[in-house]
Amino acid sequence: MDIFSSKEHYLQYLEQISQVPDGFRIATLGIRFYPEEKPVLSPLPMNLVLIQGEQPIEAFGGLFTRNKFPGAPVLIGRKRMEQPKVRGVLINNKVSNVGAPSGVEDAEEILSTLATYAGGKAEEYIPASTGIIGWRLPKREILNALPELVQRLGTATCFDAAKAIMTTDAYPKVARRRLGHGSLVGFAKGAGMIEPNLATMLVFLLTDVILDRKLLRETLHKVTEETFNCISVDSDQSTSDTLLCLSSGYRDTVSPAEWETALSGVCGELAEQIVRNGEGTSHVIRVRICGAPDFETARELGKAVVNSLLVKTAIYGNDPNVGRIVSALGDYIGNRNLPIDPARWEIFIGREQIFSKGKFLLDREKEGRLSAYLKEASMEAKGKTFPPHNRMVDIQVELGSGSSEAMVLGSDLSYEYIRENADYRS
Amino acid sequence: MDIFSSKEHYLQYLEQISQVPDGFRIATLGIRFYPEEKPVLSPLPMNLVLIQGEQPIEAFGGLFTRNKFPGAPVLIGRKRMEQPKVRGVLINNKVSNVGAPSGVEDAEEILSTLATYAGGKAEEYIPASTGIIGWRLPKREILNALPELVQRLGTATCFDAAKAIMTTDAYPKVARRRLGHGSLVGFAKGAGMIEPNLATMLVFLLTDVILDRKLLRETLHKVTEETFNCISVDSDQSTSDTLLCLSSGYRDTVSPAEWETALSGVCGELAEQIVRNGEGTSHVIRVRICGAPDFETARELGKAVVNSLLVKTAIYGNDPNVGRIVSALGDYIGNRNLPIDPARWEIFIGREQIFSKGKFLLDREKEGRLSAYLKEASMEAKGKTFPPHNRMVDIQVELGSGSSEAMVLGSDLSYEYIRENADYRS
Repeated sequence: MDIFSSKEHYLQYLEQISQVPDGFRIATLGIRFYPEEKPVLSPLPMNLVLIQGEQPIEAFGGLFTRNKFPGAPVLIGRKRMEQPKVRGVLINNKVSNVGAPSGVEDAEEILSTLATYAGGKAEEYIPASTGIIGWRLPKREILNALPELVQRLGTATCFDAAKAIMTTDAYPKVARRRLGHGSLVGFAKGAGMIEPNLATMLVFLLTDVILDRKLLRETLHKVTEETFNCISVDSDQSTSDTLLCLSSGYRDTVSPAEWETALSGVCGELAEQIVRNGEGTSHVIRVRICGAPDFETARELGKAVVNSLLVKTAIYGNDPNVGRIVSALGDYIGNRNLPIDPARWEIFIGREQIFSKGKFLLDREKEGRLSAYLKEASMEAKGKTFPPHNRMVDIQVELGSGSSEAMVLGSDLSYEYIRENADYRS
Repeated sequence: MDIFSSKEHYLQYLEQISQVPDGFRIATLGIRFYPEEKPVLSPLPMNLVLIQGEQPIEAFGGLFTRNKFPGAPVLIGRKRMEQPKVRGVLINNKVSNVGAPSGVEDAEEILSTLATYAGGKAEEYIPASTGIIGWRLPKREILNALPELVQRLGTATCFDAAKAIMTTDAYPKVARRRLGHGSLVGFAKGAGMIEPNLATMLVFLLTDVILDRKLLRETLHKVTEETFNCISVDSDQSTSDTLLCLSSGYRDTVSPAEWETALSGVCGELAEQIVRNGEGTSHVIRVRICGAPDFETARELGKAVVNSLLVKTAIYGNDPNVGRIVSALGDYIGNRNLPIDPARWEIFIGREQIFSKGKFLLDREKEGRLSAYLKEASMEAKGKTFPPHNRMVDIQVELGSGSSEAMVLGSDLSYEYIRENADYRS
């Protein structure tokens, strides 16, 4: 992530890169509602976002949560992947429409009504929701808002949409790459509940270059494994994670390599931003596991480290408690009985080697240097820029048990995380 | 756990049940040392505990962490299990002797010296350590203290030993059952890093009844699976977890059923106490998973719920965010592709049903009752007794996918947990 002279400057930059690719129109609209499930003093706000292709879209793809209890939008979205063409995406925040009575029926009724205003058929619209689990969508309020939402199409940028889908996100997330004669723009909603397989994360990727559907989907899958599926804020995988990619085909096509490079760039940047503004993130932790028998094991070991509560809290406290890193690795490996021997490990934090071949390499001076390194990487380190810095806590582990590697991003665990999550719904 | 009129009253009760079973003698001693690995202003305190059989012990058993990077005491202890007889156990807190250069050699040298003072051979003593990972044992200070420690044998009770091995524990943990003409007494050290497979937990079980070694070990394994391996404070499994059981054989034998009943009672009680005084525990959470295809799946699902950061923080905030419970179950099941269908689930919190066959059952009144239920179960609920109450947050899940069940105990995630762990070593 780049550094800007101020938060305003950063937001201005986001606006500059948020032009909607050719062939798409976006609208946003805020509404209010009283939930059936909880007494509230005043109506709650909800934002609606509509993304529409000016023409029906053939090249599109999506990836959805692996949670066994997915929300109604995920159930519907998965089916939509089989459609020959789609027209658009309807997004809402505040209520995730997961496990609510008549959740699928409510969403389908909304899309059906949307189609009468916006054109096409209900099956050509993909729903996406994020927010509280178990509540019903405020169907009446959404239905009432659809005419105005459709009327507004073309008035919003990707930046507006990124702002509208935020829940506890600290700032909107947009990334852009030039792609041939066109562009690829992505925007995302992340924050809490971010784990492996797209946990409450909504990501929308729009491009105007001509792409083959099969190539689009294959590249999307590959790049997601190496970016969004390598981040973890709290190891909970949400019921609603959704990543959608749409191509309007308004611009000349590009080579598969150009496409993959642009997609990797946008997804990698959004993934890092999701971690950096995770709920209560004070340190971003980057774990690189090398010398692993395979990519999957490398990635899971990286996650075992960044998801260890003891590692997270030590780093939050700027305490180089290196034993907890080795313990987290040993816990994962021992429980799965993997043939990975600590007697071969080499472990570094920043540039300091802390472990070699089964033994720690620690002394009083190194302890002081490690502690200073953690303090410098804290997001609480004051500065006038935005963000104050883009440093991470780098942990590198050489397992000596193969030639695969993975890089995983995670965050520490702060008081702020607990504050935000102890009563998220109030 | 019983309720006492005051903390003093509770500690008096522990003293009453802490008489050492016949045929054992215990000593405790406090020492001080400067660690090589970290600059400190004043020397750090460490406690030593020696448990010794008056005669060599044939009936003994132990279970150790499955962490792939176990401490030197675990490496040595596992070997000791093959000995025909043992004489005693030497325990220290503050430094876990994990991954330290010459960790095994240091521990063996200490035990060898201990044997010259206390009788028997080095191989007849089992070491156990808890505390900071990566530091070396203060060998010189421990060696110097051994003569006095041996001289003190017979002066300490199990309560004294339970106090001496505490690290961040809120109170000492002792449990006792009568067993035939003798007794079984257990004491434990728990708190942070408590997960499945005995995570930094030290448990010592002493009995004076005659037991066959094979029976002792088989029952120990079975009971541990259902008690200590069903608790989880922070899902980190330590490098040092050790559970040892010794029988002096001074009293008449008992039936296998009597033995199992007493062992279950003592282990179940200690396991609950370890959770209830876990680091920063504000609510004890008890998840019962029924209708599972097998015990292992039931237990892992229970752990998936009590280890979800989002479930833990919601319960800490007395927020009945029931969606997070279902999401945690769905996350675990979906990622392993298990054939367990949410359309069959029935879920209760306390006496309130919150989910039935794929849908939530929520309304504004139920929300209020659930919130009140969580507040009542908080350890922060004031009271003059100790503990203020013994309530738990009961979550019951009927999966409808088999006939196995498991009960898992865990804790919420509080500010206090982070405070204790952000700089544990200072």
